[in-house]
Amino acid sequence: MNKQQQEEEEHTFDLVVIGTGTAASTTASKCSSTGWSVAIIDSLPFGGTCALRGCDPKKVLVEAARIIDSNQRHKNKGIIGSEAVHIKWSDLIRFKRTFTDPFPKNREDGYINAGIVPFHGHARFIGPTTVKVEKVHNNSNNNDNTSILDARHILIATGSKPMNLNVPGSENIITSDQFLDFGYDSLPDRIVFVGGGYISFEFAHIAARAGAKVTILHRGKQPLEHFDPDLVNSLVQRSRDIGIDVRLRSELKSIDKSSSILSSSSSTTTGSSGHSNKLIVHYSSPSFSSLDNSKHSGNNDEKSSSKLEADMVVHGAGREPNIDTLDLNAAGIEYTRRGITVNEYLQSVSNPAVYAAGDAAANMGLPLTPVASYDGAVAANNIIKRNTLKSNYTGLPSVVFTIPPIVSVGMQEKEAKEKGLRVKINYQDTSGWASNRRVGETCAAFKVLVDEDTNKILGAHILGPHADEIINIFSIAIRLGLTTKDLNDPILYTYPTNSSDILYML
Amino acid sequence: MNKQQQEEEEHTFDLVVIGTGTAASTTASKCSSTGWSVAIIDSLPFGGTCALRGCDPKKVLVEAARIIDSNQRHKNKGIIGSEAVHIKWSDLIRFKRTFTDPFPKNREDGYINAGIVPFHGHARFIGPTTVKVEKVHNNSNNNDNTSILDARHILIATGSKPMNLNVPGSENIITSDQFLDFGYDSLPDRIVFVGGGYISFEFAHIAARAGAKVTILHRGKQPLEHFDPDLVNSLVQRSRDIGIDVRLRSELKSIDKSSSILSSSSSTTTGSSGHSNKLIVHYSSPSFSSLDNSKHSGNNDEKSSSKLEADMVVHGAGREPNIDTLDLNAAGIEYTRRGITVNEYLQSVSNPAVYAAGDAAANMGLPLTPVASYDGAVAANNIIKRNTLKSNYTGLPSVVFTIPPIVSVGMQEKEAKEKGLRVKINYQDTSGWASNRRVGETCAAFKVLVDEDTNKILGAHILGPHADEIINIFSIAIRLGLTTKDLNDPILYTYPTNSSDILYML
Repeated sequence: MNKQQQEEEEHTFDLVVIGTGTAASTTASKCSSTGWSVAIIDSLPFGGTCALRGCDPKKVLVEAARIIDSNQRHKNKGIIGSEAVHIKWSDLIRFKRTFTDPFPKNREDGYINAGIVPFHGHARFIGPTTVKVEKVHNNSNNNDNTSILDARHILIATGSKPMNLNVPGSENIITSDQFLDFGYDSLPDRIVFVGGGYISFEFAHIAARAGAKVTILHRGKQPLEHFDPDLVNSLVQRSRDIGIDVRLRSELKSIDKSSSILSSSSSTTTGSSGHSNKLIVHYSSPSFSSLDNSKHSGNNDEKSSSKLEADMVVHGAGREPNIDTLDLNAAGIEYTRRGITVNEYLQSVSNPAVYAAGDAAANMGLPLTPVASYDGAVAANNIIKRNTLKSNYTGLPSVVFTIPPIVSVGMQEKEAKEKGLRVKINYQDTSGWASNRRVGETCAAFKVLVDEDTNKILGAHILGPHADEIINIFSIAIRLGLTTKDLNDPILYTYPTNSSDILYML
Repeated sequence: MNKQQQEEEEHTFDLVVIGTGTAASTTASKCSSTGWSVAIIDSLPFGGTCALRGCDPKKVLVEAARIIDSNQRHKNKGIIGSEAVHIKWSDLIRFKRTFTDPFPKNREDGYINAGIVPFHGHARFIGPTTVKVEKVHNNSNNNDNTSILDARHILIATGSKPMNLNVPGSENIITSDQFLDFGYDSLPDRIVFVGGGYISFEFAHIAARAGAKVTILHRGKQPLEHFDPDLVNSLVQRSRDIGIDVRLRSELKSIDKSSSILSSSSSTTTGSSGHSNKLIVHYSSPSFSSLDNSKHSGNNDEKSSSKLEADMVVHGAGREPNIDTLDLNAAGIEYTRRGITVNEYLQSVSNPAVYAAGDAAANMGLPLTPVASYDGAVAANNIIKRNTLKSNYTGLPSVVFTIPPIVSVGMQEKEAKEKGLRVKINYQDTSGWASNRRVGETCAAFKVLVDEDTNKILGAHILGPHADEIINIFSIAIRLGLTTKDLNDPILYTYPTNSSDILYML
């Protein structure tokens, strides 16, 4: 104990940042560039979820899946030989690692070059403005085992982590992190994704194009709850068409590990070095009688017990702020399950020295990288210039990178109706439009909400090729309060593109 | 002669439209929907260049070429078997025809349903507001051989046609129309494109991905003159990397048809039913001594005579207004080589009953479909409401659908410098950005011009994946006078996309 105390070093900084992801790095850089002394802490390799285990590596996998899908869609459309094209999973993961492997060192070098002091270790509060860092990595630049960091300001930007599923056998479930780093020659034969959110749908679309037999189990009636239900229904149909078994009103109950006597066929394909154990996934599902009755009563929740076999079960059932181990109470920092409770300046409502940004903050945005980036800038401004910039997430778009992607910005139809707004709703299946026919896309639609009095864009929801790009035009329109006239008269879009289709959505 | 006169029928309309393309149809529909009597005339199958012989069918071919390119770019990135993928040209043209074949009847049916009276024939003026139509099609809805149409207003929207090349042997050159409808199993081995404009580059990129050996001959030093020279240089390099022989300062002199004794290898692959004749393309090129000298004098135009063999030569050397056969003098309609001379209301400066729109008009826009569509709407407004809407092409984007595409909107660097503007020029090669690396794109760059005083976007030039989509954000910015702050603070772009790269271009 004496020895331990001797090794504790004390440091004082203008700002201590907990986390090394998008929000953390943005705030750290901005504060450091004004001449402040800044420390930054992470127990994981530097870079955060987006760069190492989230959107960036995922998009690498999505692009490969898009190639497979494009080839299949262009059969009988002038392309031959496309049936020979496959994803080789180990190659794909190796390619992904060319992005992720160099990242932690590059990020740390960037910090050091900017004068930001890096600490590798677990952070926890031991006072209102004091953080203790317990070392985890031996190869860090800091030789002390424990450091005590005092700061004028502290930013919590620790991101999020998969929710605890609290079912028996949940230790057999892998996270999206592990899925993204699964380096075997091919994916296992049968993969179950738990939850019907964006992680499950994105990874299911990748896995199906890589040749796996995929099932999604979703508790509710409607997956992808932040997106337009009509467009989601089309996407669910398309997902089923490519072989993804989407099971709704199906709640995970438990997972059993089984000996692989009955699954020899699957174990041979999953590689000799492991992952050959069959998993039995138990879940509750609507009983047939319940389905029948529901046509009459509409409210019968009778469920039966079902099971299915799988070679891999992936957690896609939601994430929560990664704040459990911070000992927030020691600093008097209020929080809920949604994250650190902050005001519109992203400042803790109970400890004015503390700010929070990104997924760790109970902000009014969604847990998305652009929000983390934006929050990081807002927090930096308010730490340096004392609460002069209110966060404002108007026009924040959200994407599910399925193939095709589904996107959403602004108001949903349901919300507009609940508010009793006078709104024009343009909803159309666009699979027959030339822009979709020429790429063989049979799953495409849009729903655009326009205020009848002002002609301003209230919301836009698009499913189809390049929806992830063109939604940004609607995002700008909503943010800047543009009208349909601003977008279609006399704007001259590139033709023929998906952008030029916007003229017919207004 | 007497018989002929008996068959002449006379009709009177509120509006007669010459042409059935984008501009023509837009004006005809708008005027018809206000209750006016409208006639429309074309000697070709109804639909115009864009739908039948231009952007729409071309984009079908571009998509197939994109598939080939995507497959090649993803080699060693997780995709295997892609070397088996090929374009089967006859299948591709058959797929293209599923778009073009039904179009003329659909368009004509649309006219008839709207009460617009169609005439199939050659139109020429015989008075200030009188047009004579001489029948060409036997299967038309009109049984008269010749019709005389009197009108209160006339719209000329006859589009454009390939320029006359005026070289010996030019009858051996096929047009883009014929290239787009070349229905053999595969393209000929060796294709020469004459001219370094967008038609040549787009088709060359398609043909190269379809396996042809492609050469582009361009008279000047700089192809794609409407685009940023630095980005064009990158695209030329990429074009050469995929095997396109881009020869600059190379002017077509003549074409000889040769017996195919020496070209047996090429004749066997071009199909048994024709196209086996070898063509000898003669052109002038900078002599080696001239190239050497130019380092010193910079102004030596000494040229030597060169030739190359080809199995197909395609006209990509520019288009001109299609107005030669209209007998414009008979109606007192002023015109130049740029088209009908119009004021900013698109009204003829010499005959107030006549308007012109699209490629046939000497408007201030480019010969692009969105301009035709816009012109059609402006002309309709001004015909109906008597010159109340001035045409305004600010923020008009332009694309070359190469792979990757190159785009341009607003001011060029050269123009900004000539005007002596205080302008910030952001120019960067982006091939190392994650958005390009993850799709294997090695050819990508941007140049964005920002007014230093106002921070407004003056121009944007992008080369790379999805440039054709994201340029529309800059187009809107230029049109609406948005600043960099409007685009990057606090706009939250979808991530990771090519749109989110915009933040780093401002």
